[in-house]
Amino acid sequence: MAVSLWKSLLQTTKSRLFLQRGVSLYNGAHGFEEEEIKEKLQQFGGGSINLSKEDNGIGVLTLNNPKLMNAFTGTMMLELQERVTELENWKDGKGLIIHGAENTFCSGSDLNAVRAMSSPQDGMNMCMFMQNTLTRLKRLPLISVALVQGKALGGGAEFTTACDFRLMTPGSEIRFVHKQMGLVPGWGGAARLVQIVGSGAALKLLSGALKVDPERAVHLGLAEETLPSSDENRSLEEAQAWLNQYTKAPAEVIQAVKKVVTAGRELQLEAALQAEKDIFGTVWGGPANLQALAQSTKHK
Amino acid sequence: MAVSLWKSLLQTTKSRLFLQRGVSLYNGAHGFEEEEIKEKLQQFGGGSINLSKEDNGIGVLTLNNPKLMNAFTGTMMLELQERVTELENWKDGKGLIIHGAENTFCSGSDLNAVRAMSSPQDGMNMCMFMQNTLTRLKRLPLISVALVQGKALGGGAEFTTACDFRLMTPGSEIRFVHKQMGLVPGWGGAARLVQIVGSGAALKLLSGALKVDPERAVHLGLAEETLPSSDENRSLEEAQAWLNQYTKAPAEVIQAVKKVVTAGRELQLEAALQAEKDIFGTVWGGPANLQALAQSTKHK
Amino acid sequence: MAVSLWKSLLQTTKSRLFLQRGVSLYNGAHGFEEEEIKEKLQQFGGGSINLSKEDNGIGVLTLNNPKLMNAFTGTMMLELQERVTELENWKDGKGLIIHGAENTFCSGSDLNAVRAMSSPQDGMNMCMFMQNTLTRLKRLPLISVALVQGKALGGGAEFTTACDFRLMTPGSEIRFVHKQMGLVPGWGGAARLVQIVGSGAALKLLSGALKVDPERAVHLGLAEETLPSSDENRSLEEAQAWLNQYTKAPAEVIQAVKKVVTAGRELQLEAALQAEKDIFGTVWGGPANLQALAQSTKHK
Repeated sequence: MAVSLWKSLLQTTKSRLFLQRGVSLYNGAHGFEEEEIKEKLQQFGGGSINLSKEDNGIGVLTLNNPKLMNAFTGTMMLELQERVTELENWKDGKGLIIHGAENTFCSGSDLNAVRAMSSPQDGMNMCMFMQNTLTRLKRLPLISVALVQGKALGGGAEFTTACDFRLMTPGSEIRFVHKQMGLVPGWGGAARLVQIVGSGAALKLLSGALKVDPERAVHLGLAEETLPSSDENRSLEEAQAWLNQYTKAPAEVIQAVKKVVTAGRELQLEAALQAEKDIFGTVWGGPANLQALAQSTKHK
Repeated sequence: MAVSLWKSLLQTTKSRLFLQRGVSLYNGAHGFEEEEIKEKLQQFGGGSINLSKEDNGIGVLTLNNPKLMNAFTGTMMLELQERVTELENWKDGKGLIIHGAENTFCSGSDLNAVRAMSSPQDGMNMCMFMQNTLTRLKRLPLISVALVQGKALGGGAEFTTACDFRLMTPGSEIRFVHKQMGLVPGWGGAARLVQIVGSGAALKLLSGALKVDPERAVHLGLAEETLPSSDENRSLEEAQAWLNQYTKAPAEVIQAVKKVVTAGRELQLEAALQAEKDIFGTVWGGPANLQALAQSTKHK
Repeated sequence: MAVSLWKSLLQTTKSRLFLQRGVSLYNGAHGFEEEEIKEKLQQFGGGSINLSKEDNGIGVLTLNNPKLMNAFTGTMMLELQERVTELENWKDGKGLIIHGAENTFCSGSDLNAVRAMSSPQDGMNMCMFMQNTLTRLKRLPLISVALVQGKALGGGAEFTTACDFRLMTPGSEIRFVHKQMGLVPGWGGAARLVQIVGSGAALKLLSGALKVDPERAVHLGLAEETLPSSDENRSLEEAQAWLNQYTKAPAEVIQAVKKVVTAGRELQLEAALQAEKDIFGTVWGGPANLQALAQSTKHK
């Protein structure tokens, strides 16, 4: 009895999380010292994370550090956190495309920053910082697409798994090269990869550091499809057209759809059912619903 | 230590649930006022839910409200709950086929009832009522099949996900049309859809309100196969023949098989393992087991 | 607040488990009397479980009781536990191949032992003993392959699911024959099968006691591929060559890869993310990582 009450409290808490914004995975209780790691990251500058929010409700986020194949410097990690906060507060947003500058995706972390943070505690702090951001990114109430042009390597490969979908251009590749650096993923890429392709395929991709071209990615369920063009701008337009198929409804409705799917993806069935019911309550009798009901009366 | 003891208690409780019947997801502790919502539903009559239990252990449940494409009225929701209770108590049951009257499946909720319950609280109460019933339906110790003839739309599409399998007739379709009504699923259809087809496909089906024909359904893993016939009675016979392949054993054994799969589907691995062991204990040394052992001795 | 603290404690505990060895699922708190069941199992002798650990970090475990198609006697269950402990402590291990003697896999339990332990309590104790061992086997920080030559029946079919991968020789089969014995899986085979092939396919395989040949197994995702040869020794070499593709890195790295995948497979996303971060911390700045970083500097 106490157990079942406790259980229902725990599930309710879980379910409520999907109605909130900006909830981080790690805080002080996990030994995570956010301010300390932010100060360290601040010391490794270069590159930027750019966001443009279009009127059609689709945002474009650009990983921009082309001289290092868009590898993440410390300040890019900090900027990414700010952009995610901005996206959480975007009332009219429906979709998001993430790509890299100059026709390639991202090669992971800037090795200069990496070398300066070589203690296990520093490494784990950096992971907690990035996991917090990428978890919030994946839970955004927007339908998100990683547009993979060129290469997504190491942390770049992990980053693609923080989107709902991956679209690849001809000749592009996703590759978890971590083992060649004597590492495993730490930004959450392994946990999310298992969710996307299953544990068997994930084990092969990670232990073999396999190069995943678009055909293989589609076969594994890692990518949705191969876009026709490998031209930088044209493939971005193609990705936008693809995403447009799924954003034709008021923002409140698309956001609610994303939330119920997030709940189904992250929670056990009972908690996911409760979240679904709560999210349903946010649109039931809302403006889009009332308008549709009025419409269906007229048609009678 | 306290944590691990608590964890094992919680898992044991979870595991025990699969040996019980009639356990609801929501009760008063969740703010669910069952009697209140039942009174409201009682006011919206029409249609019926019919059940016939065959001697071969296969039941046929018919959603019957053909003038509204078998949309659920309030009294149909109440009757569904009663039929599920009856099925929970069917000692000799092994399988269940659910279909709609007059060669179409179900178009969701009767809009008259919907319009009268437009407050978020009413909406969520209705969801809790239906989730309770559909969760008990999916957990029935029977192998269940939704036979999709014609259309399964909105709540009707959600309903199909509360069965273990879906079989479709040529020309039929499943379509989560919710976004066109400014809504998301609320009867648990999103959470269950994610379990069946994965979160990527679920996100596309819901945000695009995509029409899923039998070919696409089979490709996605949403349906098992396309039946040969689109004739109402003949396709029902075909569904029964399909199900018959999987019910050739004593009821106690088929029911135990369904229970271990339900545990594997709903619980995390450790809790599922515990449930499996408990369910194993209900058939080990039981009549079917002893008879098989005696048989295997004779063959020596 | 209390809830969220408790939750984070529970997840941290979960996450820590993946860094430990020899953690059993059941202990006295679950009513499991290990010493008692071990005494009983000791009475049913015959066969052996043989382990050879190769210099390349790949172990070969042989189920050896050919006159009963390698069925498990009581003492074989006890020996399996010892071999798993030995593998948990193998510092240089990277991979493991499990096969049966004389070109067939395993036919489950020795019926003599089974008949002598026919009470539900005995049955559940035997299940708890085997689940403990097979859970530890599946969590080994080694990439494990069941090489299915000939037949894997009943408990033998369950056993294959305790490996990361299954490779099958031409003409071999996996078959969950439990229902023909009036039973369901109890060694965890149902729970793991649902994880591997999904609940729909698992329900069909168990309720239909379907014979799964290599082609069907690959189609379902139950097996990775059909090996070219059905010759006993040649197919063992083929399995070793297959596994070799995934073990080309220092043991500490391969073991860490297996651990992050195990976490992703067993835990909910948040707990899996935490485990991934902890495992990352064990290789970050470690010898393989430092060597790779030094190498990448030289290449500049």
